[in-house]
Amino acid sequence: MGSKFIVIYGGSGALGSTVVEKFKSSHKVISVDLRENGSAHHNILLTLGLGLNEQGEFVENQLRSILEGQKLEAIICVAGGWAGGDASDPKFLSNSALMIEQSLWTSLISVRMGSLFLKESGLLVLTGAKPALAPTPGMVPYGVAKAGVHFLTQSITSGLPKDVKTVCIMPVTLDTPMNRKFMTHDDTWTPLEHVADILDGWNSNTMDLKSNSLCAIVTTKGETKCTFV
Amino acid sequence: MGSKFIVIYGGSGALGSTVVEKFKSSHKVISVDLRENGSAHHNILLTLGLGLNEQGEFVENQLRSILEGQKLEAIICVAGGWAGGDASDPKFLSNSALMIEQSLWTSLISVRMGSLFLKESGLLVLTGAKPALAPTPGMVPYGVAKAGVHFLTQSITSGLPKDVKTVCIMPVTLDTPMNRKFMTHDDTWTPLEHVADILDGWNSNTMDLKSNSLCAIVTTKGETKCTFV
Repeated sequence: MGSKFIVIYGGSGALGSTVVEKFKSSHKVISVDLRENGSAHHNILLTLGLGLNEQGEFVENQLRSILEGQKLEAIICVAGGWAGGDASDPKFLSNSALMIEQSLWTSLISVRMGSLFLKESGLLVLTGAKPALAPTPGMVPYGVAKAGVHFLTQSITSGLPKDVKTVCIMPVTLDTPMNRKFMTHDDTWTPLEHVADILDGWNSNTMDLKSNSLCAIVTTKGETKCTFV
Repeated sequence: MGSKFIVIYGGSGALGSTVVEKFKSSHKVISVDLRENGSAHHNILLTLGLGLNEQGEFVENQLRSILEGQKLEAIICVAGGWAGGDASDPKFLSNSALMIEQSLWTSLISVRMGSLFLKESGLLVLTGAKPALAPTPGMVPYGVAKAGVHFLTQSITSGLPKDVKTVCIMPVTLDTPMNRKFMTHDDTWTPLEHVADILDGWNSNTMDLKSNSLCAIVTTKGETKCTFV
């Protein structure tokens, strides 16, 4: 176990758990999620019902006490979910609230924690969605939240420690148990380990990264490439 | 006073009040805001502290009891505010929460109310911001919320009554008392009456409108044009 700290926001989700596994032998992993991830070295357990600002203050205080003045090497926010539908859906507003909380709030909190705790030249990763590069009539709540994350990534060119690299990954369909339950699997689905490998490459500076950019994660015949758009 | 109902969301703000004045002689105006607008025929008074879904349910119930089965001719959402800063600002998260509530929540609620209560061929107007067509490093909370409104406008191509026209106005600087207090006035500021005239033109079908589009409201030497982008 190294002494370098890394935050995985959404560390108990399908992708988050895979990323925690990837980094746990080389880093002190701090998972932030509603549920504990037993593989992480530290868990910051969120509670439902807090506002954006209150949730941010909670995470800030918890991080401050874990880090004791040390800095973070990276913050990787892979929190999120999916909810579709259009304005005729009775759940339109509750789904929108959920998507905003799961994707946009977590990203905003990650950005603020980056300003407070990332080291210089550290890494900040947010998670968007390739389909939200264009209007998303069939899944408005999801698209609006993800489009907000894209815009946020492109706008945070100041306010972070010197030379911090920021990037938004944009998967298409991840190979998660939940997606396998509801959709038919094909060879364009992205294995979670491929995403973790890309994150590891950026964090270790073995792979190039264009800061404040959006990076599409596209899998073809089981092979995954990331392309900056 | 006509018998045609119109909702002005944010009807007690600077722009909202001007729009209420514009329509009150020809329509039954329903103002939705935190404060009452004495010129409106009906006021739906919001309370702080509700979530997005709860606020939507409240507005829905109030509208249902005012309309008694009748339909709305138009919903014009001009609610909003401004908060700047980047991630280094201690108010980054509270400002983000405020911008999301003031611009994105109000727009989402307006869209949902549109699905429930607009007549066929009715008008739905949301309010974005021209500067948020590109990244907004100096005013991240504002930009993220407005970019979300832009994306929402472009995505709601289904779920609304037949032939409803939807548009997002994108002003640059409105000539409001608040802006005059904090900035130096020049002849690129847009008089509120000019915006109200445009909205009236669209509502009365005397001005063309491209649905699901963003419309920049730009004033040059005191003359205002709207351009679809």
